Amino acid sequence: MTERTAGDPSGIDAPLADLRARIDAVDGELIELLQRRLALVSEVGEIKGRHGVPIYAPEREKAMIAAKRVMAQERGLSPDFIEDILRRCMREAYTHEKNMGFTRQAPDLGPVVVVGGRGRMGALFARMLTLSGYEVHVLEREDSPADAARMLAGAGLVVVSVPIKDTVRVVSELPTLPADALLVDLTSTKREVMAAMLAAHPGPVLGLHPMFGPDVDSLAKQVVAAVPGRDPEASRWLVEQIRLWGARVHEVSAEDHDAAMGLIQALRHFSTFAYGWHLSQEDHDLGELLTLSSPIYRLELVMVGRLFAQNPELYYDIITASPDALALIERYHGRYGEAIELLRQGDREGFVARFGQIGEWFGEHAGAFLAESRTLLAHADANR
Amino acid sequence: MTERTAGDPSGIDAPLADLRARIDAVDGELIELLQRRLALVSEVGEIKGRHGVPIYAPEREKAMIAAKRVMAQERGLSPDFIEDILRRCMREAYTHEKNMGFTRQAPDLGPVVVVGGRGRMGALFARMLTLSGYEVHVLEREDSPADAARMLAGAGLVVVSVPIKDTVRVVSELPTLPADALLVDLTSTKREVMAAMLAAHPGPVLGLHPMFGPDVDSLAKQVVAAVPGRDPEASRWLVEQIRLWGARVHEVSAEDHDAAMGLIQALRHFSTFAYGWHLSQEDHDLGELLTLSSPIYRLELVMVGRLFAQNPELYYDIITASPDALALIERYHGRYGEAIELLRQGDREGFVARFGQIGEWFGEHAGAFLAESRTLLAHADANR
Repeated sequence: MTERTAGDPSGIDAPLADLRARIDAVDGELIELLQRRLALVSEVGEIKGRHGVPIYAPEREKAMIAAKRVMAQERGLSPDFIEDILRRCMREAYTHEKNMGFTRQAPDLGPVVVVGGRGRMGALFARMLTLSGYEVHVLEREDSPADAARMLAGAGLVVVSVPIKDTVRVVSELPTLPADALLVDLTSTKREVMAAMLAAHPGPVLGLHPMFGPDVDSLAKQVVAAVPGRDPEASRWLVEQIRLWGARVHEVSAEDHDAAMGLIQALRHFSTFAYGWHLSQEDHDLGELLTLSSPIYRLELVMVGRLFAQNPELYYDIITASPDALALIERYHGRYGEAIELLRQGDREGFVARFGQIGEWFGEHAGAFLAESRTLLAHADANR
Repeated sequence: MTERTAGDPSGIDAPLADLRARIDAVDGELIELLQRRLALVSEVGEIKGRHGVPIYAPEREKAMIAAKRVMAQERGLSPDFIEDILRRCMREAYTHEKNMGFTRQAPDLGPVVVVGGRGRMGALFARMLTLSGYEVHVLEREDSPADAARMLAGAGLVVVSVPIKDTVRVVSELPTLPADALLVDLTSTKREVMAAMLAAHPGPVLGLHPMFGPDVDSLAKQVVAAVPGRDPEASRWLVEQIRLWGARVHEVSAEDHDAAMGLIQALRHFSTFAYGWHLSQEDHDLGELLTLSSPIYRLELVMVGRLFAQNPELYYDIITASPDALALIERYHGRYGEAIELLRQGDREGFVARFGQIGEWFGEHAGAFLAESRTLLAHADANR
C-alpha cells in the first residue's frame, strides 16, 4: 500500500523517488557503455586512418544499422529507437577529428598555397590540408608581390579563396605558377572564374564550391561541387582527399553549376531577404508569433531569421555573382503575381489544379520531404 | 604484428573484425539497458497517470538533463552527447500513449459530440478524448437532423471540426445545445467563427486552433492556440486536459490570432506555393539540385516540396480563411519588387543597410535561429 504523508496526500513521492534513483543508476551504466563504444570506434578509426581507408563508409554503415534494427526488434525494442541512438553515437565519433580521414593522398606534392587563407573558408581548407600532412602557406593581400612570387614558385596546389567579387581579378593577377601546379578556387560562381583560371594557368585547373559555411563542426556529409577545368587526372587526389574528410563531391559543368546555384542559392537567399524585410515591416511581435508556432511553423521562421545572423556582403555577392540571377528572381516575382491573381479571382479550382501540377513535378520527393521534415522535427528535442 | 594475407595486403581485416565483434556486443548491452530505462520510465508514467500528475514536466526534465550532463562531464563523456541520447530516450517514452496524461479532467461531464469527427483532426480529438475516459460520439453530415438533435441533447462538450469554409454555417445550424454545454471549434481562423459560436449558443464558448497536422506521433510539445469566447472558467478543464496530453496551450484574442495566422500560415503557405510553382516552371532537374545541396540547402528544398504532399483544398482554405490575407500577400509582393530594385541598381550598400535593419528587428532571435538550424541539421542523421 502506498504510504501517505501530510505533504504527499497522493502517496507517490516515495515510489517516484525510488524509480528515479533506479533510472539514475541506469544512466550511469549508459554513460559507461557509450564510452566503451566510442573507444572501440576510435580504435577502428585509427586503424583505418593509418591505412588510408576512408572513415566514412556509407554501405557498411547501412548494413550495420540494418543488423542492429533486427537485433532490437528481436528483443522487443523499437528499431527506429536503436537506429537513432546508434546514429548519434556515430556522429559523436565523426566530430572527433582524429577519427577523420587525414591520410595524405598526394605525398609528393609541392607546398600548398591558400590565397586568402585568413578568410574563414580559406582557413578551413588550410587547416584540413595541414592536418592531412601537407605543407601549407597562406597568401594574403598585404603580402608583397615578391613574397607572393616566392611562395607560389614551387607550389603543388594553389587554392584561391577570396571574396567572390575579387576572384577573377586575383586569379588573373597571379604570377606564373609551376606548369604542373593545380589551380583551384572555392567560389560560389563558376563560369567566369573557370574561364579566368584556364586563361591564367596552362596547367591543371579544378573549380570547387563548398556548399556549406566555414563554421561546420565537421565535413561529414557536407557537399562540395566540383567543376572540371583542365587535366582532371591531376586533381583526382584532391577530390579523394576531400572525400576522406567526409564530404560528398559532386562533379558538374560550370554552366549547370551556375544554373543550379541560381535556384539553390541566389533565388532562395534573395527571397528570404525579401521575406524578412516584409516581416519586419508588418512588425507583428516576433515573440508572439513564436509562441503561437508549433515546431513546423517555428522552423519556417527559423529558416528566415537565421539569414540575418550572417554576413550581408557575402549574401549580396552570392545573389549577384551570376548575371542570370536577376532575371531568375524577376521571373519568380512575375509568377508570384500570377499566383496572387488566383486568389483575387477566388479561383479555388485553379489553385488546386496548379498545386497538383507542382506536386507532379516534385514527384515522390514531396512525400519523402514531408516525412523527412517530420523526422527532423521529432529529433529536435532541444527544450526552448 | 598484423597478419598479412593475400586477400588482405594491409592486414587490417582481422583487427577490424575483432573490434566490430566487440562493438556488436556493446550494442547488445545497449539495447538491454535502453529497455530497462524505458520500463522504469513507463512505471513513472503509469504512477503519474493514475494520480492525474502531468507526464510532461519541463522543469524537472531540465534539472534531470543538467545533472546527467555533469555526470557525463565528470566521467569524460561529452555532455551534449549524453543529453542527446537521453532526450531521444525521453521522446521514445512520450510516443507511447499509455505514458501520456489521460486522466479525465472533467469526470462529471456529459457526453462529448465531435461534429465532423471522421475528418482527421476531429478523429484525433475524438480518440484523445476517448482515451481520456470521456463518452464520445461523432456527428457527420450524413446523420439526420433527428439524430443530431438526439446526440446533442445531453452533450457536455461539442467540438466542431469541419472544413474551414463550412464552419460558420455548421455552427449556425446547430440545434439548441444544453445551456451549460461547452461549444468549441478547431478552425484556423477565429474572428468570424467566434462570432458565430457566441451567437449560436448562450453558454460557454472556446475557440481552439491546433497548430499541427493530425498526423503527429504525439501531442508532446505541439501548440494549441486558445481564444476565449464566453465563461472561461467552464472551459478551464479542457485546456488542462490538452496540457495533460502534452501540448502547449497559448491564449490569444481572436483579432491577434487572425493577424498572427496571416503571417504564420497564409503568407507562408502561399509563398511556398508560388515558389514551388516557379521551381516547376524553371524545371531544372530536382534530382541534380538535391545532389548539389548540402544539408542546409536540402532543408530549404524540403520545406518547399513537403507542402505538395498535402491537401491542396485545406491549404487554399487556410490561405483564404481570413479576409486580410490577400492584402498581406499583396504587400509582400510589392516589397519583393522594391527589393529587386536594389539588385537592378546594383545597390550593394542599400542591400547591406536593409539587411542590418532586418537583423535588428529579429534581434537575438537571428543568432539563436542560426544555432538552432545548425543543431537541427546535425541531428538529421538519417542516411539519404
